[in-house]
Amino acid sequence: MHIGLVGLGKMGANMRERMRAAGIEVTGYDRNPDVSDVASLEALAQALPPGERVVWVMVPSGEVTDAVICDLAGLLDAGDLVIDGGNSYYQDDAKHAELLGRTGIRFVDAGVSGGVWGLENGYGLMVGGAPEDIERAMPVFDALRPVGERADGFVHVGPVGAGHFAKMVHNGVEYGLMQAYAEGYELLAAKDLVTDVAGTMRAWRKGTVVRSWLLDLLVQAIDQDPGFAAIDDWVEDSGEGRWTVDEAIDLAVPAPVIAASLFARFASRQGESPAMKAVAALRQQFGGHAVKVAGGETVTPTAPATSEG
Amino acid sequence: MHIGLVGLGKMGANMRERMRAAGIEVTGYDRNPDVSDVASLEALAQALPPGERVVWVMVPSGEVTDAVICDLAGLLDAGDLVIDGGNSYYQDDAKHAELLGRTGIRFVDAGVSGGVWGLENGYGLMVGGAPEDIERAMPVFDALRPVGERADGFVHVGPVGAGHFAKMVHNGVEYGLMQAYAEGYELLAAKDLVTDVAGTMRAWRKGTVVRSWLLDLLVQAIDQDPGFAAIDDWVEDSGEGRWTVDEAIDLAVPAPVIAASLFARFASRQGESPAMKAVAALRQQFGGHAVKVAGGETVTPTAPATSEG
Amino acid sequence: MHIGLVGLGKMGANMRERMRAAGIEVTGYDRNPDVSDVASLEALAQALPPGERVVWVMVPSGEVTDAVICDLAGLLDAGDLVIDGGNSYYQDDAKHAELLGRTGIRFVDAGVSGGVWGLENGYGLMVGGAPEDIERAMPVFDALRPVGERADGFVHVGPVGAGHFAKMVHNGVEYGLMQAYAEGYELLAAKDLVTDVAGTMRAWRKGTVVRSWLLDLLVQAIDQDPGFAAIDDWVEDSGEGRWTVDEAIDLAVPAPVIAASLFARFASRQGESPAMKAVAALRQQFGGHAVKVAGGETVTPTAPATSEG
Amino acid sequence: MHIGLVGLGKMGANMRERMRAAGIEVTGYDRNPDVSDVASLEALAQALPPGERVVWVMVPSGEVTDAVICDLAGLLDAGDLVIDGGNSYYQDDAKHAELLGRTGIRFVDAGVSGGVWGLENGYGLMVGGAPEDIERAMPVFDALRPVGERADGFVHVGPVGAGHFAKMVHNGVEYGLMQAYAEGYELLAAKDLVTDVAGTMRAWRKGTVVRSWLLDLLVQAIDQDPGFAAIDDWVEDSGEGRWTVDEAIDLAVPAPVIAASLFARFASRQGESPAMKAVAALRQQFGGHAVKVAGGETVTPTAPATSEG
Repeated sequence: MHIGLVGLGKMGANMRERMRAAGIEVTGYDRNPDVSDVASLEALAQALPPGERVVWVMVPSGEVTDAVICDLAGLLDAGDLVIDGGNSYYQDDAKHAELLGRTGIRFVDAGVSGGVWGLENGYGLMVGGAPEDIERAMPVFDALRPVGERADGFVHVGPVGAGHFAKMVHNGVEYGLMQAYAEGYELLAAKDLVTDVAGTMRAWRKGTVVRSWLLDLLVQAIDQDPGFAAIDDWVEDSGEGRWTVDEAIDLAVPAPVIAASLFARFASRQGESPAMKAVAALRQQFGGHAVKVAGGETVTPTAPATSEG
Repeated sequence: MHIGLVGLGKMGANMRERMRAAGIEVTGYDRNPDVSDVASLEALAQALPPGERVVWVMVPSGEVTDAVICDLAGLLDAGDLVIDGGNSYYQDDAKHAELLGRTGIRFVDAGVSGGVWGLENGYGLMVGGAPEDIERAMPVFDALRPVGERADGFVHVGPVGAGHFAKMVHNGVEYGLMQAYAEGYELLAAKDLVTDVAGTMRAWRKGTVVRSWLLDLLVQAIDQDPGFAAIDDWVEDSGEGRWTVDEAIDLAVPAPVIAASLFARFASRQGESPAMKAVAALRQQFGGHAVKVAGGETVTPTAPATSEG
Repeated sequence: MHIGLVGLGKMGANMRERMRAAGIEVTGYDRNPDVSDVASLEALAQALPPGERVVWVMVPSGEVTDAVICDLAGLLDAGDLVIDGGNSYYQDDAKHAELLGRTGIRFVDAGVSGGVWGLENGYGLMVGGAPEDIERAMPVFDALRPVGERADGFVHVGPVGAGHFAKMVHNGVEYGLMQAYAEGYELLAAKDLVTDVAGTMRAWRKGTVVRSWLLDLLVQAIDQDPGFAAIDDWVEDSGEGRWTVDEAIDLAVPAPVIAASLFARFASRQGESPAMKAVAALRQQFGGHAVKVAGGETVTPTAPATSEG
Repeated sequence: MHIGLVGLGKMGANMRERMRAAGIEVTGYDRNPDVSDVASLEALAQALPPGERVVWVMVPSGEVTDAVICDLAGLLDAGDLVIDGGNSYYQDDAKHAELLGRTGIRFVDAGVSGGVWGLENGYGLMVGGAPEDIERAMPVFDALRPVGERADGFVHVGPVGAGHFAKMVHNGVEYGLMQAYAEGYELLAAKDLVTDVAGTMRAWRKGTVVRSWLLDLLVQAIDQDPGFAAIDDWVEDSGEGRWTVDEAIDLAVPAPVIAASLFARFASRQGESPAMKAVAALRQQFGGHAVKVAGGETVTPTAPATSEG
């Protein structure tokens, strides 16, 4: 099989390598000529047989993906198949499918999980689209997914959009898992009784109920930087956590854990919390409570307050 | 009526003033001789008629209250009545009642709300104890509570401990109310479309569903310090919020709002969040995501990550 | 002043009454001829002077408001002013302003709070638009808002959309306040020590820190139906709570209390929680824990489990 | 090595089997004579050499463990070692150590994770106590823990109490992980676009970031009962989740995810939510909103409400 691959960043380059190792011929294109196999998207299109092309798009979601798919709509032919493997918002998939479909180009969305470790371990794949399109790309999916039972690392979730929807939920769950471990870490670290925090988390790796790949990574992170001295408590969010909570709201599904995990990330990036300034100011109004004035000095009222309110 | 009052801090002194204004004779004692009416707790006891004494204790909860009640147990006589008006943990009340009861001294617990504004507005009172003890102290309660219907500012909640339990729940509710307003404030302040944040909150004072005394105070705080430039986002908690969530857990009552309000206060006092450092470290492991190294610089991985995971 | 009023449901009819009581001439239109002053929207337009008309729209948000504004765009003239007083999503305001503006019709959005009590107490008003448009409608705003200082019940929040944005946040705050009181109520009700739940909440009405109009209403509700025997634990959400959390996510503002309040409403309407079925099933897998099979019978494993996991 | 084992329920019996398979001689005692090796606790004590005994206690935490340890204090000799492998509250460990220590008996607490699967996979072990006591019991720990690196399934967390503290936190984390997966499951199940919920969760098992042992169990549970038709949404909590949140409060550590998971379990067991009845009643007061009267019928107010408030 011969596939076109657009986007050779960290993820795309690794995927090219894994596909080639599985015997798939890959023509990769990237704006960066140092990593690209061909000089242009046109060249990529010409390297593949019209009407039988399979082009995997692996670029940042949003505007970049929109632009690439728009370009492909002009370069490909009826019967060709585009697979969006990026982290696109699932509601964009229908738009992309519609755009490509005007000229008979097929579309499949693929949620891809595994990060930098996917090259070695294989990628978890969640795909959406028509059965025949997915069947056609199965050699690629089989190359990318982990070895073993196909069903343990690959799923046809539903029609177009379903793959990215499942990946979005996957990432929402991931937010919750990470926050749960992080709260556990902080509790262990806050307790004098615990004299070996790193060892405790490491000992959770086997036999326990909480063992997981994320835990393995956390143990590795602690090994590399005990106490996380070299890292800030500043956590980005990639968009998929937000989409997951938005979706929960739209579906009227309670999602307190995923939402709390998202809010914790927001809070982590605030230098100051306007809300907590408001609470501090409010307490000062009714109780004469100690507050910190800007700069950090604690101001104790002259007479002791005996009541919060 | 003649009452003894132990503790003349901000709250106690105000309450003495309000009682006297209502025609109650008050003998106050405080360790600070500048504000005390008598030289010692003994002198206070001697100033009141044995077996008919009513002594209101208004000192910090915990060890100080324990000590004062222990002293009073040695100084008072059978038939005397002690009222603990501080913010004691409700489970301490039974211990205090038991200690005093050994020599026939009666006990009532009184949750008191109103802060520094109580002098003028009257205090909301929630009391626990035997009906005859509460009846006996009613002139004091009537002096302290707001004018108007007694039932709108005073309640006999139940047996000993019930008053402080109700006050504890009151404060838990208060945490939730404050956080709700604070989140609203932050949302208004974060939105460019809103050009008059202070005016908006002020306009909520009348006619709206969210009007309240806490809102009045918040508006006043914003007037005094627009943007809260002079105050830190650092919020103490007085213990009663913690007790409320502990109690919710003990009673298996879901209390997500009160708990979230408490956790927001905890977070406000953390210079750094160990949990969020753990999440940041974890993201770095699997995705090569941007993190901030200690000191604040953002480190972007050389190749763009297209996946959270 | 003479104003047109579209929509004479509960809110609209009350507002007509309050405006008329303030000396404003009101021509009201409703699809229901029993309450309408004129037979059609055309008749309403004809009853007002071209170029000087002020038309207040008070119909359900979404499609109905869209339709009314579309109709008014065809009936009104340059210089006329439309005020949307419904609970429209603030992002719809710009669209409505644009549509009306094509023919020179002006637009103001007005968030209105106060429910059925507004007729008597006045309505809290939060408006968005151009200063001259708001100035022009000020007699109407003054008639609708509570008596007293204008700034305590009326605010010009910002440009078009800002009024509904402020109302949306107001309702988000309201969700949080209601949930805080509700958690407090449940804690009181769950505790045997508390023998007078209704009396306790009533006693919070004066003097305390948690006193508010919502509390007054809750006390009234308890009076009417102690124990809430006649009502289900089933709580609708009107959309504005959802929008508030969506907005918090968009602005990266942590809103744990408002989100928790929204999720509690979602959960209240679920006959069964799929998530909690999943947790129950999961516990059964690893621990042989007691679960309830469908129908409600508790199944205890034959050998006692000594571990959650 | 020869060890005494008290408690041969599901966990204890499995542990006896695993120890014996590792060549350790085990004398087990249980109140149930069908499974017990000896007739009494006295007989168990007599079967082991005085001053060199190691007795593992594996009975329900709380009163049963208290009673067994009290009995052992009377039966054992100076130099003997008691290991509490149950899910005891970590603050009880110091009391047990003190009681046993009066006569020179040593004490180690061991948090044990792994449930019914531990027999095959080995148990994750977190122990607290003096280094020499732990060294002495190491053959037992090595027999129970998973094969492989000792540090991946065993840890000496700290002094007495630290083992159970770590196990408590482990279970708190577990609550969060389970809830995160459960929310993800519900989101998938709620979305029409997803036509293969079970397949999607199964496909998360390999390659993805969320892969874990708990996920494997959840997939197995779904396989056994698709849609969880045979199970109620009713989830017990074992005490350790409560203790974890209590501890978070005591340490002022924000734990929103673990707390939310705990509250979700509380809510799952409520036939009706008093809090949500209060919210429903409150909405009815101010807005004339639709509510459900007891029995389930929806009551719509005669005139449409256009406002939440």
